[in-house]
Amino acid sequence: MGERLLVIGGNAAGMSAASQARRRMPGLEIVAIEKGRWTSYSGCGIPYFAAGAVHGLDDLVVRTPENFRAARIDVRTEHEVTSLDVEARRAEVHNLAHGRTFQLAFDMLLIATGSSPIRPDSPGFDLPHVHGVQTLGDASDLIADVKRRNPKKAVVVGGGYIGLELAEALTARGVAVTVVDAGPEVMGTLDPDMGSLVAKAMRAIGITVQVGTKAESIDEISVQTSAGAIPADLVVLGLGVQPNSGFAASAGLRTGVSGALVVDRQQRTDLPGIWAAGDCCQSIDLVSGRPVYVALGTVANKQGRVAGINISGGYATFPGVLGTAVTRICHQEIGRTGLTEHEARDAGFSTVAATIEATTAASYMPESAPVTVKMVAELGSARLLGVQIVGGRGSAKRVDVAAAALAGGLAIDDLVGLDMGYAPPLSPLWDPLQVAARTLLTKL
Amino acid sequence: MGERLLVIGGNAAGMSAASQARRRMPGLEIVAIEKGRWTSYSGCGIPYFAAGAVHGLDDLVVRTPENFRAARIDVRTEHEVTSLDVEARRAEVHNLAHGRTFQLAFDMLLIATGSSPIRPDSPGFDLPHVHGVQTLGDASDLIADVKRRNPKKAVVVGGGYIGLELAEALTARGVAVTVVDAGPEVMGTLDPDMGSLVAKAMRAIGITVQVGTKAESIDEISVQTSAGAIPADLVVLGLGVQPNSGFAASAGLRTGVSGALVVDRQQRTDLPGIWAAGDCCQSIDLVSGRPVYVALGTVANKQGRVAGINISGGYATFPGVLGTAVTRICHQEIGRTGLTEHEARDAGFSTVAATIEATTAASYMPESAPVTVKMVAELGSARLLGVQIVGGRGSAKRVDVAAAALAGGLAIDDLVGLDMGYAPPLSPLWDPLQVAARTLLTKL
Repeated sequence: MGERLLVIGGNAAGMSAASQARRRMPGLEIVAIEKGRWTSYSGCGIPYFAAGAVHGLDDLVVRTPENFRAARIDVRTEHEVTSLDVEARRAEVHNLAHGRTFQLAFDMLLIATGSSPIRPDSPGFDLPHVHGVQTLGDASDLIADVKRRNPKKAVVVGGGYIGLELAEALTARGVAVTVVDAGPEVMGTLDPDMGSLVAKAMRAIGITVQVGTKAESIDEISVQTSAGAIPADLVVLGLGVQPNSGFAASAGLRTGVSGALVVDRQQRTDLPGIWAAGDCCQSIDLVSGRPVYVALGTVANKQGRVAGINISGGYATFPGVLGTAVTRICHQEIGRTGLTEHEARDAGFSTVAATIEATTAASYMPESAPVTVKMVAELGSARLLGVQIVGGRGSAKRVDVAAAALAGGLAIDDLVGLDMGYAPPLSPLWDPLQVAARTLLTKL
Repeated sequence: MGERLLVIGGNAAGMSAASQARRRMPGLEIVAIEKGRWTSYSGCGIPYFAAGAVHGLDDLVVRTPENFRAARIDVRTEHEVTSLDVEARRAEVHNLAHGRTFQLAFDMLLIATGSSPIRPDSPGFDLPHVHGVQTLGDASDLIADVKRRNPKKAVVVGGGYIGLELAEALTARGVAVTVVDAGPEVMGTLDPDMGSLVAKAMRAIGITVQVGTKAESIDEISVQTSAGAIPADLVVLGLGVQPNSGFAASAGLRTGVSGALVVDRQQRTDLPGIWAAGDCCQSIDLVSGRPVYVALGTVANKQGRVAGINISGGYATFPGVLGTAVTRICHQEIGRTGLTEHEARDAGFSTVAATIEATTAASYMPESAPVTVKMVAELGSARLLGVQIVGGRGSAKRVDVAAAALAGGLAIDDLVGLDMGYAPPLSPLWDPLQVAARTLLTKL
């Protein structure tokens, strides 16, 4: 009998790795354990399902357990790994559907257990009408609850990507929504001056935004905050996620930022024959050089692919993250990559920043929409450190250009000289990124 | 009396330079000579004016002669430089409105005379109903002619950007349009396999496309081609442009590719105190290292800015071009950067190419549209050489990411690992560029 790879976690990272390993090692036995009912789904699509733009949860599933089984990957859904013996090389697995527990031996192990929504231990955060939105199971529960009870007033606790996307989705369903965020502004991954543009767009469609406000406790009819009670018969948690690394840490694996598992560029843990990938791992920020915890599907897929190649005897590396993220909230596209001004200062850089207003297309074209770009550079070297964008259609993905520029180590004058595409319906003659770079250059 | 800068040409390059010089040297006398009636306009906006999407030609003017005069730049429209004495440092200027000729002395000279549509010397190409579309004057003449005569059948000679944009614009005005192109496919700046996707989109809105067909002569009612006569009461020239470098060459300035003026990275000609910028100049292709002739507004503006900084005692360089270009034709966005497969082979590279089909957004989202990406790399080094894209909304400007990657010297595996933005309405989890890079990686 050949070797067995055990994959814990049947979503982006785990199944990317399993697929790579399957392709490269036809003789390998691959068992994948997944707690939920679904494999390889788009968690980022949940808000669009919640808003009704995507009709069925099945539309969010990229590959089903049956798809994987057809490729000889033994996927076991509704199973959970409850403990791990790394010396004996076996896992204790609990069958959630039938309540049975068994031991599963492995030769190689990939931990891809993902993350869970942060749920404070304050009173009421575990009530049934308080929903996380991380898994398809969560989404299914949330929408079932909305349909069953027809809630009138929702509070979204935390103004990050998923929280704001859900706030918009619930508004589209006719629920009156208040977002409370303890920080100085919503969208804490942006500098507050850029985050305020997002808050403005949210208020424009009728969402109440309360920043500098901490949710303290929850009961059936309200959320108690540092600024008083807010009536709410539905609560959504948007406080971010934490890595599902507990049982791996108990088994002796090293953890770092936010308790995430520490891996090297090949996605190896510090124990031989054990890899980790996706939301349960930390990454290296390529701009600051520091370890960071970034739980995003893009990163999970890339890390899973790299782990799968290495597990099956190939060689690949995951270079690290730039902190790139995009979304669309209340008709505004939002993008960021690299470091914000605050992050850059925290990381010890002397920074110069410029914020400009431009248009997404030539100003005389009907496609033209306003866009605000904030660009941050290092004083002296003029090296690009990061970009934040808020604007109309066609704005957000412009951060990818900055991401490539960060990866290539370009300086601000390189961006000014960069040969970018121009056509009146698609871009002004100087792309908004270059307008920002030119303004920044005068400040350098 | 202080020094005088003479700028020949009042559009993108010339006026960018004049503006930079004005800002940096308040005491400099600046005279700008412009043949037409307009300054600093968006020539690329002409097709949208022709289609009726932009209502007035004035909308295309970025800055008027009055704007420049208010900034103490002495703009003289409807004036033409007829000859140049570089030793004596003076130009002969003809006032087109009043028919007078005078001598204008200069201390420093910027040649920014732009380009003119290529007009073959075959019979009939100079008839009144045969229109070039390079200047606002050309656009004004074309639309006046269309409104006056209400032509029924048009032939566009040449299937490049401007030709295809005009073909679409005339179709929108109810004219039956045939495009004839002597090459194997329209849009010769793409490889033919990608160009055929553009031809397909054109045929879908009723445009007749005849490739491998040379226009040989024109009379009032038809265009004679290598494939027979095509009825036409309106003809548009889309055969590209040639540099307006004749009088400068006569004065002793060095010319290179396509007869364009040779300049260094600071936009200096080989004669002291004489700079050149924009469509009258050649550029260096950053991928092949070869001199090329690229007549685009983006390049002209950048070169003008660089010339203006250097003229006024600063230091700036124009790094070269990547051949980036984008447009939208018949609901398809088109982008390219770097070298096509054919260009790369011509330049001596051993190439590997991959063409993939993906979507612009997550496939389950209503915003999702098909997109085709062709990516070319160097065999061995895996260095990115170029990208071509044809697809729905949000496709074209993705070439800017490849442009930044080319500028940073990234290889294909760097692109696979690049931290690009993902959100269901804006992008699939693996951006189409990365899907292409992954496919290409398996071929390398």
